[in-house]
Amino acid sequence: MNYKMIGYVLGRIFLVEAALLLAPTAVAMFYGEGTVPVFFTTIGLLLAFGLALGGRTPKDTTIYAREGLVVVALAWLLMSLFGALPFWFSREIPHLVDAFFETVSGFTTTGASILTDVEAMSRGLLFWRSFTHWVGGVGVLVFAMAVLPMGDGRGMHLMRAEMPGVTIDKVSSKLRDSARITYLIYLFMTVAEVVFLLAGGMPLYDSLIHTFGSAGTGGFSHLAASIGAYDNVYYEVVIGVFMLLFGVNFNLYYLILVRRAREAFRSEELRVYFGIVAVAVAAITVNITRLYGSALKALRYAFFQVATIITTTGFATADFNLWPTFSKVILVLLMFFGACAGSTGGGLKIVRLVVLAKAALRDLQKALHPRAVTTVRIEGKPMDDKTVRSVNVYLTIYIMLFAASVLLLSFDHFDLITTFTAEASCLNNIGPGLELVGPTGNFAAFSAFNKLVLSFNMLAGRLELYPMLVIFAPSVWRRRHVPRAAHPAE
Amino acid sequence: MNYKMIGYVLGRIFLVEAALLLAPTAVAMFYGEGTVPVFFTTIGLLLAFGLALGGRTPKDTTIYAREGLVVVALAWLLMSLFGALPFWFSREIPHLVDAFFETVSGFTTTGASILTDVEAMSRGLLFWRSFTHWVGGVGVLVFAMAVLPMGDGRGMHLMRAEMPGVTIDKVSSKLRDSARITYLIYLFMTVAEVVFLLAGGMPLYDSLIHTFGSAGTGGFSHLAASIGAYDNVYYEVVIGVFMLLFGVNFNLYYLILVRRAREAFRSEELRVYFGIVAVAVAAITVNITRLYGSALKALRYAFFQVATIITTTGFATADFNLWPTFSKVILVLLMFFGACAGSTGGGLKIVRLVVLAKAALRDLQKALHPRAVTTVRIEGKPMDDKTVRSVNVYLTIYIMLFAASVLLLSFDHFDLITTFTAEASCLNNIGPGLELVGPTGNFAAFSAFNKLVLSFNMLAGRLELYPMLVIFAPSVWRRRHVPRAAHPAE
Repeated sequence: MNYKMIGYVLGRIFLVEAALLLAPTAVAMFYGEGTVPVFFTTIGLLLAFGLALGGRTPKDTTIYAREGLVVVALAWLLMSLFGALPFWFSREIPHLVDAFFETVSGFTTTGASILTDVEAMSRGLLFWRSFTHWVGGVGVLVFAMAVLPMGDGRGMHLMRAEMPGVTIDKVSSKLRDSARITYLIYLFMTVAEVVFLLAGGMPLYDSLIHTFGSAGTGGFSHLAASIGAYDNVYYEVVIGVFMLLFGVNFNLYYLILVRRAREAFRSEELRVYFGIVAVAVAAITVNITRLYGSALKALRYAFFQVATIITTTGFATADFNLWPTFSKVILVLLMFFGACAGSTGGGLKIVRLVVLAKAALRDLQKALHPRAVTTVRIEGKPMDDKTVRSVNVYLTIYIMLFAASVLLLSFDHFDLITTFTAEASCLNNIGPGLELVGPTGNFAAFSAFNKLVLSFNMLAGRLELYPMLVIFAPSVWRRRHVPRAAHPAE
Repeated sequence: MNYKMIGYVLGRIFLVEAALLLAPTAVAMFYGEGTVPVFFTTIGLLLAFGLALGGRTPKDTTIYAREGLVVVALAWLLMSLFGALPFWFSREIPHLVDAFFETVSGFTTTGASILTDVEAMSRGLLFWRSFTHWVGGVGVLVFAMAVLPMGDGRGMHLMRAEMPGVTIDKVSSKLRDSARITYLIYLFMTVAEVVFLLAGGMPLYDSLIHTFGSAGTGGFSHLAASIGAYDNVYYEVVIGVFMLLFGVNFNLYYLILVRRAREAFRSEELRVYFGIVAVAVAAITVNITRLYGSALKALRYAFFQVATIITTTGFATADFNLWPTFSKVILVLLMFFGACAGSTGGGLKIVRLVVLAKAALRDLQKALHPRAVTTVRIEGKPMDDKTVRSVNVYLTIYIMLFAASVLLLSFDHFDLITTFTAEASCLNNIGPGLELVGPTGNFAAFSAFNKLVLSFNMLAGRLELYPMLVIFAPSVWRRRHVPRAAHPAE
């Protein structure tokens, strides 16, 4: 393990976070709030640690897979810990565990909250809370990389661990270019959503908060009733459409940019994604029409809830806790599906489902015709065994983590649905679940221990499991796990 | 498709079923019940169909993978349909769908019931209901094979489709010998359990019913309160221990028989199985001690419920619906775990969990040390990629069937826990779930459509998914799917 290099990267991350904190500080100053010193203290701490660790480039800057995974895990853990300090220092969230949970929920773009009265919070802190969604959406390490003096080869392991999804195509051969293009697309879409919301009459502060929430597919709102508070169809359509757009693989936007739109629209994942959305919206609309008295109203609520759940955002306009079982089952299934790979959304990701379904169908065919040769294609390319295997293993680890966490959560003695959907919601980075953690509920009642369990799950879900799990492997922390001779090329 | 051979095998199965029906007929005659003609009518029908289809050996007796899967699926469907007739003819179960559900639940050793007043049924029919558990436990096709004039090569595809579990070792090189040994072990253990129960003072009829239920890991009882009705610790220990024993891979008993007991006790699956039982019993005992006032009483109930759920039997002594969430979560997890491969139990099977866990750990290691060479062993042998892949695909299909079925079940508008655990209970061949389908509830309230959905799931669970799913593949029903040239060796 190259501890010096790990420290160096972490130091740089702290410096980036210090810079990011200037935004909420400015908001707090603008509204003349008393939290300004709290922000400056946090920035000071980050600068001190950042300069101490990241001030001098170490001699050996090599980063291997192992270091890459560990750096990503530690970066997200520490970023959340420092990010929690303003909430804690200001006493607006009195317990550090709660503040940590809220910040993890922000950076991982989950949107699960322990706040029982969100509207009592100060505006600067609420801005920071939502801003973490935007920062966490595409990942802060990739961003930090742009300011780090590192070659492409070194950054790869970081990016691979942090960027969401099974990437089938690379956007650009140069990694740094990829990151830059991703950030530009992200920035452009963010500005577009803010403009659309402002055009509809939403105040600037509200527009920013809800754009951060949809861009990162996070879901924090500064209003207790979330988007439902406006009761405004225009806002719901704009935010609903943008959530779905942020749930699309960013590579496709790049393809459209370089005038290869045809290729983008041929994407199998994209078609399955919008297909599922269409079917789910239609089914729920029919199912809840009687509840709302009109099909149009039902369609409005169905569209928004489907968009918010499949993209794992978590904004709310209706309390789907009160919907019929059929609609609830659809929403619970969508929680696990998630959005497209390479987007800001969470969940298992559509491309994984496609790979799993195709591999299963292939094997059913094989059971019938053992000697037939079948080639399964995904996104036009033959699907190789390595891809299938990695997706299968991912599913296994995902289920094991899910089961173990539900067992731990059950110590808190809530009902089964709360327990089960709280875990589903956090692991998939959604936000709301059902019953106590439903759209109108929150996570305040969980014990401190289980808030940490859920925080771990949010991080594991956001970082696609591996980084958070390997930090428990003893071999990671040994300076030299296997004699060099056994690892000739590592 | 060799339709003539399929018809021939089915005909033979009908003849076997006709013979099996003589047992409940004798019971009905012994108690002088009015259902005797009903049994004779059913036997007559089975004989007529059986002789018409199975009277003459067809010229071409070849059975390939495809025919094997189809025969197994059809055999179990039709066996259940004919087996349902006595219930329906006697009007003791007025609707055919209900009678079919009950019989499928019997043969698949699920133990889920639509009966709201089991004690009102006649003794002959209750005997038949429990006898189907015993017959279904090790599979009727394998039994029919012993009376079928077929070579080993032909029977293999049948046995592979019907016998439960991922078999790592073959008991004997000769297939027919394997089947015979399995049946002898099964018969011996059945007699042993009856003797133990009689020794404790349980009446013969009751002993037979409950032995059938535990041997097949089915769970039907003729008492509304199941085993709990006796409130007898001795019975609970005997039945609990025998359930666990019937959940062990039968190959291990064969090893003990041929004085290779050491090998048997070294079995990884066996150790994991009993390890999970021990941990679950301990955890639940601690969790429910306050509920029952004494640790000993808690241990008694915990042991029996863990044994009944992990072996997927479904007998009840306590209403675990009322237990704390932690205990309920453990039981729900055990529902999915299931017993050992090559036993009469259902569920995913312990060996599959071991394979999944080891494959996942190997890949986590690989993520850390990409170039390290690791060999994973299972039951002392290196685990090959083919095994891992087939288990992974199994898990995928299992999850997809589960999700699709829950969606269909939700049409009935029961609460989420009823919907979810009804499916878990039927797909894993357990019997009770939670809430409405809990240990004191039943499946009567489901719609006829969803009773068929659940019946399909019970069959899919018992036959390890493939046979029930391939009957939907259009290519199965084409006389020649692919030109012979493309299938040279099929």
